[in-house]
Amino acid sequence: MSYAPPDPFGWIDDEAGRRAAAGLVRSLRPRPAEPDLLDLASNDYLGLTRHPEVTAAAAEAALRWGAGATGSRLVTGSTTLHAELEDALAAFCGFEAALVFSSGYAANLAALTALGAPGGLIVSDAGNHASIVDGCRLSRAATAVVPHADPDAVRKALDGHTGRALAVTDSVFSVDGDAAPLAGLAAACRESGAVLLVDDAHGLGVLGEGGRGALAAAGLAGAPDTVATLTLSKSLGSQGGAVLGPARVITHLVNTARTFIFDTGLAPAAAGAALGALRLLRREPERAGRAREAAAALYGGLTAAGLTAVRPDAAVVSVRAPSAEDAVRWAADCRTAGVAVGCFRPPSVPDGVSRLRLTARADLTDRQITVAVSTLVSAAPPRA
Amino acid sequence: MSYAPPDPFGWIDDEAGRRAAAGLVRSLRPRPAEPDLLDLASNDYLGLTRHPEVTAAAAEAALRWGAGATGSRLVTGSTTLHAELEDALAAFCGFEAALVFSSGYAANLAALTALGAPGGLIVSDAGNHASIVDGCRLSRAATAVVPHADPDAVRKALDGHTGRALAVTDSVFSVDGDAAPLAGLAAACRESGAVLLVDDAHGLGVLGEGGRGALAAAGLAGAPDTVATLTLSKSLGSQGGAVLGPARVITHLVNTARTFIFDTGLAPAAAGAALGALRLLRREPERAGRAREAAAALYGGLTAAGLTAVRPDAAVVSVRAPSAEDAVRWAADCRTAGVAVGCFRPPSVPDGVSRLRLTARADLTDRQITVAVSTLVSAAPPRA
Ligand SMILES: Cc1ncc(COP(=O)(O)O)c(C=O)c1O
Ligand SMILES: Cc1ncc(COP(=O)(O)O)c(C=O)c1O
Repeated sequence: MSYAPPDPFGWIDDEAGRRAAAGLVRSLRPRPAEPDLLDLASNDYLGLTRHPEVTAAAAEAALRWGAGATGSRLVTGSTTLHAELEDALAAFCGFEAALVFSSGYAANLAALTALGAPGGLIVSDAGNHASIVDGCRLSRAATAVVPHADPDAVRKALDGHTGRALAVTDSVFSVDGDAAPLAGLAAACRESGAVLLVDDAHGLGVLGEGGRGALAAAGLAGAPDTVATLTLSKSLGSQGGAVLGPARVITHLVNTARTFIFDTGLAPAAAGAALGALRLLRREPERAGRAREAAAALYGGLTAAGLTAVRPDAAVVSVRAPSAEDAVRWAADCRTAGVAVGCFRPPSVPDGVSRLRLTARADLTDRQITVAVSTLVSAAPPRA
Repeated sequence: MSYAPPDPFGWIDDEAGRRAAAGLVRSLRPRPAEPDLLDLASNDYLGLTRHPEVTAAAAEAALRWGAGATGSRLVTGSTTLHAELEDALAAFCGFEAALVFSSGYAANLAALTALGAPGGLIVSDAGNHASIVDGCRLSRAATAVVPHADPDAVRKALDGHTGRALAVTDSVFSVDGDAAPLAGLAAACRESGAVLLVDDAHGLGVLGEGGRGALAAAGLAGAPDTVATLTLSKSLGSQGGAVLGPARVITHLVNTARTFIFDTGLAPAAAGAALGALRLLRREPERAGRAREAAAALYGGLTAAGLTAVRPDAAVVSVRAPSAEDAVRWAADCRTAGVAVGCFRPPSVPDGVSRLRLTARADLTDRQITVAVSTLVSAAPPRA
């Protein structure tokens, strides 16, 4: 070809060079089908993603309903399997109604864009998940980012605002695993008639009686001014997300939420797997407590050995690393020793503090917890 | 409970009242597992979503890999199955590299936010899909919306802009089924060194040799200044999306795209199903042509009977309705007669023109096409 266009992606090479110089290159590391590492990095908190009952439910749904939903939920993409899952999620978590999305990310975008609006106000915790941040941006509401886990800051931000207002928080923050002060936030919202939106991605299956989630635990499930978002991709071991709330809110989403209306429905296999996981959790409610106990045991072992960690409120244990380089090397050494852990460092962490992120699972054995702790401790950098 | 908060959702009831008064209420209609209608409404263009080979591939993947990916693609959510799918998509469509997302929606958000940027310019066709519009908004680039399918308008919008610029278009517009003038758009982009981003959601599997897509058909696959997005949820009968392009663009997405980094990986069943569908399409490349022929036959029958339709460039046939009410009644009458069709009306259609949206499938029989045409024609409103 004789045509030689100017290079439209030269800037990408420049950015890649800067990332490499800063030691911040991310790359994919595909894993095999059979786990070859002790997994303390996934969000499979209840150990259900490979549970034979859950994978069988996924397989059966694919065979019976087809591999895809075939269209928008408003056209051909709603099956009675989706409706069954929505009923089951609402009943389990104690809400009037639920709506299922192709991801938890899409559920957050939907809730924020459908409930926020130009002229409205969204008050958002500084530690909230990226999908909440993106939802705030897409909503075109004024957004006030407030200090982490601070109901007084939320109260102040809401104070004096007339018109629609909403405060939004993760129930359990994904990086540090600390819980939001839901009671205080609900009180602050109620003083000014604001809606409280809680992303229970890391609370469902772990917190509340039998894993009913952070809102049930806080007595907020089904409250008329409270909306929850969930993912099906963590405790339920599948893929997808949901919004839970009063029926009129769900109807509003069906009519207005762009990531619902203009997205293909969740694949039947994912809906079937989430239903299977919910059934299992109803039958084995003790899984929720076991995940929390495993997290407490990890935390106990690590801090007893002198490491600095955040006391876990759910199943995530965050361990502080002295530097980004130390965190990367620490995680790599754990992996070499057979233990997979998450590694968070700038720019993924808002506060600039690098840490290892460990996740507990309901099916971790005492022996695995001991191995995990001793591996983490032996591989720890000098100043950790 | 003695506490009675002010009603924070009164505005939702007001909006619902206005929708009802305007006859614009949308509601879900869950369908059964066994199709009970002749389907001219889904995006299952190749008839693969219920194909035994594809559903078996979904089921096997769930059983072998688990029901979920368990984490972000950058942590535990990349399996060798995802890598295999990425290689297969890139090879099939003729691009250097590919990256798979949990939805086509997420793929568009990723491409636009990672390639657009504050200070940059995005030139976007007025008929583009909602996920492209949302991606433009999230990118915080300046966005120029240009008249539909108009390379000269794109040229003018790009003219004089210094700095990063990108033009974005659906390859086949989802509502009317008309094709974008890709050659003209590519020429306009090259004049000013802009990138061309093409959403081939409705082209993959239908256009190009053996269904390799609109970019292959236009000789643009693998071009150094061209990026494609795809969905796995239409011709491939599954769920998910992908971005295809030069390897450095894909690496850039891995490092910067928020809907990649902060989203759980695509469920193994969906990845397996898409791989199964790709395998099938390689073996039966004639499916692509059959989908196009079925669309042409539908169009021929409908226009021969005096209806107004857009000549299909791919598998979507758009039929004009005299009014929104007529469109709704027409679609409902077709449904009563056993034929499912899509119905688009304001505010889903940018131009205010209501229409029925028919989709052809490679597995439609001549007899089904005849039935579909006669049903549409008998149910047509007087002025259609
Ligand atoms: C707090 C939180 N919300 C939302 C999401 C997005 O959910 P999903 O991965 O199911 O899209 C995640 C993680 O991925 C999360 O950690
Ligand atoms: C043109 C176009 N792009 C993107 C999407 C989104 O893809 P998905 O439904 O797989 O998220 C759709 C339809 O849903 C579409 O029609």
